Amino acid sequence: MFVDRLIRKIKETNNPSVVGLDPRLEFIPSHIREKAFKDEGEGLPGAAAAILDFNKKIIDSVYDIVPAVKPQLAYYEMYGIEGIKAFYETVQYAKSKGLIVIADGKRNDIGSTAEAYSSAHLGSAAINGKKVQVFDADALTVNPYPGYDGIKPFISDCELYGKGIFILVKTSNKSSGQLQDLLTQYGKSIYEIVAELVNDWGKAQTGEFGYSSIGAVVGATYPNQAKILRGIMKKAYILVPGYGAQGGTAKDAAHCFNKDGLGAVINASRSIMCAYQSEKWASVFSEEEFEKACRAEALSMKDEINAVLGTA
Amino acid sequence: MFVDRLIRKIKETNNPSVVGLDPRLEFIPSHIREKAFKDEGEGLPGAAAAILDFNKKIIDSVYDIVPAVKPQLAYYEMYGIEGIKAFYETVQYAKSKGLIVIADGKRNDIGSTAEAYSSAHLGSAAINGKKVQVFDADALTVNPYPGYDGIKPFISDCELYGKGIFILVKTSNKSSGQLQDLLTQYGKSIYEIVAELVNDWGKAQTGEFGYSSIGAVVGATYPNQAKILRGIMKKAYILVPGYGAQGGTAKDAAHCFNKDGLGAVINASRSIMCAYQSEKWASVFSEEEFEKACRAEALSMKDEINAVLGTA
Repeated sequence: MFVDRLIRKIKETNNPSVVGLDPRLEFIPSHIREKAFKDEGEGLPGAAAAILDFNKKIIDSVYDIVPAVKPQLAYYEMYGIEGIKAFYETVQYAKSKGLIVIADGKRNDIGSTAEAYSSAHLGSAAINGKKVQVFDADALTVNPYPGYDGIKPFISDCELYGKGIFILVKTSNKSSGQLQDLLTQYGKSIYEIVAELVNDWGKAQTGEFGYSSIGAVVGATYPNQAKILRGIMKKAYILVPGYGAQGGTAKDAAHCFNKDGLGAVINASRSIMCAYQSEKWASVFSEEEFEKACRAEALSMKDEINAVLGTA
Repeated sequence: MFVDRLIRKIKETNNPSVVGLDPRLEFIPSHIREKAFKDEGEGLPGAAAAILDFNKKIIDSVYDIVPAVKPQLAYYEMYGIEGIKAFYETVQYAKSKGLIVIADGKRNDIGSTAEAYSSAHLGSAAINGKKVQVFDADALTVNPYPGYDGIKPFISDCELYGKGIFILVKTSNKSSGQLQDLLTQYGKSIYEIVAELVNDWGKAQTGEFGYSSIGAVVGATYPNQAKILRGIMKKAYILVPGYGAQGGTAKDAAHCFNKDGLGAVINASRSIMCAYQSEKWASVFSEEEFEKACRAEALSMKDEINAVLGTA
């Protein structure tokens, strides 16, 4: 079961955080970019080679201290077929290092189409009666706008393949309230109603620690809503974006945890990937030593979270 | 401008319909599947070869009588890297035949990530200062759950590259009402509020026929809501799924049009792709003649819509 594997990895590393792999070219140290462009040309293949090399080096630098990585599909799709190949290879490489992989795709559609997305990322495609696993991540982020029949195929594959999903409840961006904060006739906001649904949908997928593989996304940038949402979804694992570069702190994100110190994982992308460019680490590590900066920042984030949670 | 190109093609073909390219393997005639599996093996490359061959034959059979095609990304993603390659080649082939291509991806995320999706499908990726167009569809479907800052990057590329988007307002599936029909504190449902936003967001993208390149998705399966939504979004082009296999009729979809006979395009996927398997056409065309069945069904759909719209 996904949620149990995730919790075991979190306990093993004593680290409830996730490294986001959003490899924009401008984040990648110039020696990696230059080598990739020299080898593969300055087009999509060169860009894809650069992001794969970058990702592998980040994974090498953190795989023993973090439980999971979260590649953001958009940054691979942006580099076309070659980018998708880099995504696939990133997923496989991270898994080979024992990391849990959360594919961040925010996929969604009506039932039959959601089934195809689920086959792509969690389950398998049936080809002439044979089941073929495709991208085979451990979990996928999904968007709830189409309602239950767009979510059900993912839940079925979670059960069948021991995978997980994180359903968007309250996103970390500025305009997230435009729809998500609207108050409904039931005196509850949309994000509260989605949270109740997530709770409901996840009941059958509860693991040995009492948590569900049907999780939620709640931005660290909205600590007050996080408090409310933790109360509604007592058993959903919460994926928390918005930490670091987006302005959310460990203290903000702490509202997503339960008193057992479990219940959430905090994602950081840019602050770890670009640690070598930061005020904090640029004077300590050179650009060529960017992996060391990644590791130092990941450890510093871990300490910060554990201090706030009182689990240090 | 996207919407003007679309309208010109609709007028040229006298056909406000779109052929959905959702190539599930079970939809593909056995002679095409067998050849692909023989040439490429019974794995993902074979599946991808089958769907590309199938798509090309469908495109060949309808490109002169329909204005646009709508490949559904999920059915390509399901076949991995090879599937995405088939998607890319389908888009390019359809464009080479003069068709408008609507990539159906329901993409969405916070601002910076939405920008990457937009670069992938509508705009271009910047690689070492050079702009590279990636999948380069004419339009993309997007999900509004993150609010305006998740939509803005797509709108910018629409303006810059003459592209379009269709924002999910009311989806065609059974459970679409679970969130979309919720009544808010303003006495309006979520789908009405999204419609007002679509209207607002699209104002700057109005073309020579008075319509906007910032369009909406409204399911043919909800004719009453369609009537209301057409009233709210007078100028948004509406993409109407749910016709045919999902149960929506031309009469249902007609509510999405304005009195000028414009304002909407109706999508049919399975009813055209699988026409050769249908009661209506199976006795007329053999499986080997499936292209003829596609064309016959596309023409029959065109006539049905035009009869209802009074534009026959």
